[in-house]
Amino acid sequence: MTDTRIDGFLDGRLRISQPVRGYRSGADAVMLAAACPARPGQAVLELGCGAGVASLCLGWRVPGLAITGLERQADYADLARANAAANGLALTVLTGDLAAPPDALRGAMFDQVMMNPPYFLGGTPAPDAGRATARSEETPLAAWIDAGLRRLAPGGWLTVIQRADRLDGVMAALWGRAGAVTVLPVAARAGAPAGRVLVAARKGARSPLRLLAPLITHAAPRHDRDAEDLTPLAARVLRGGAPIDMGIAKVS
Amino acid sequence: MTDTRIDGFLDGRLRISQPVRGYRSGADAVMLAAACPARPGQAVLELGCGAGVASLCLGWRVPGLAITGLERQADYADLARANAAANGLALTVLTGDLAAPPDALRGAMFDQVMMNPPYFLGGTPAPDAGRATARSEETPLAAWIDAGLRRLAPGGWLTVIQRADRLDGVMAALWGRAGAVTVLPVAARAGAPAGRVLVAARKGARSPLRLLAPLITHAAPRHDRDAEDLTPLAARVLRGGAPIDMGIAKVS
Repeated sequence: MTDTRIDGFLDGRLRISQPVRGYRSGADAVMLAAACPARPGQAVLELGCGAGVASLCLGWRVPGLAITGLERQADYADLARANAAANGLALTVLTGDLAAPPDALRGAMFDQVMMNPPYFLGGTPAPDAGRATARSEETPLAAWIDAGLRRLAPGGWLTVIQRADRLDGVMAALWGRAGAVTVLPVAARAGAPAGRVLVAARKGARSPLRLLAPLITHAAPRHDRDAEDLTPLAARVLRGGAPIDMGIAKVS
Repeated sequence: MTDTRIDGFLDGRLRISQPVRGYRSGADAVMLAAACPARPGQAVLELGCGAGVASLCLGWRVPGLAITGLERQADYADLARANAAANGLALTVLTGDLAAPPDALRGAMFDQVMMNPPYFLGGTPAPDAGRATARSEETPLAAWIDAGLRRLAPGGWLTVIQRADRLDGVMAALWGRAGAVTVLPVAARAGAPAGRVLVAARKGARSPLRLLAPLITHAAPRHDRDAEDLTPLAARVLRGGAPIDMGIAKVS
């Protein structure tokens, strides 16, 4: 992975090196971090951390976290380590597969687990191997969620961002295994179908599911000035690093 | 069931006799009928038709349907038959349990199946046996959906209305068994969590799930004039009998 470039996140507060070609994190990773309800002092695991964007956004927002990222691809894991160092944030990156977790992860329990399981976004498959692996389905969605739940302490929260058309897969994988399931649709425009879903679930909770009003990311009907049409809430999250309120503060 | 009274539906276009005490259909049944994408000439099955509100709303909107309602409680089935006759609409009502369907239903296939599986709405349990049965969980949600899928012809649509907090149960029951799953959250107010979900799924389809923008039923923040604050769309559906567009016309 020789060709990388620096991308700014959170309005340039984080500068993160990512491959020029191959899988590149974007708004999904930032929203995932924003939705993770981690509190200072907690232990957090990100499954499939890639170059570290979500973990570093979370570490930037919430002080005093012990964040561990698991990444199967060694070159991305190296990038994540370098990005943490370059941004002065603490992040422990383990190289390994969630289906066969490294020794350092076995038996470890976390207060928070977050993940952006890979999905193929359509269009022509990229020739780059890194991108193909990151977006392929070698590990099924259910296995990601299963691995996350296994590493979660009782009462801990699992936070997932996923393409909205896989909501049923997420629901099926959580069914009967976690409670307080909270679904936040993310739609580009008011009135449009959701493109993404943010899903939080609490291990051992018995509270019923809640389906929240959608988070709308773009205000104007057309992109006249590219990113300038973010809704105020989306701008606070994507540029300001503000948390996304999933309304789970009082859920048990 | 001696105490019944006449309720108006669709702005009084339908006059439907329902028990004064016990389970009473309301806006959920009207929305279910509005969301069912039945076309003239099709065969429709409603599981758990109660006093017939949803089936009769659908029959009122779409001409030339052959609608069959299955109802476990004989007194509700009798009411449904009487309500059909009183409103001059065709409805075949079978008395029986979906877990052990009557002979007339075995082997029958339908183009559309719709259902409003019972849910307990909270508050104090009603003493009336009819209400308790209609709202109890004697037949699990998954069994309702399974029975519906079994009676559906290939390419036929299953339409379900359910409390939003049971979206995961609906998703889990549909998982791997139907495609083109379409989820329409129904929320009382803009920005509020959904109270209901309308879910459509097509037997044998492979299209991915779609999570639509919510249908908002009430416009004003408070009920100053009771039902006068319906949104224009909700008024068209609940009073005018208009269909709810689930955007599934072109889904395969």
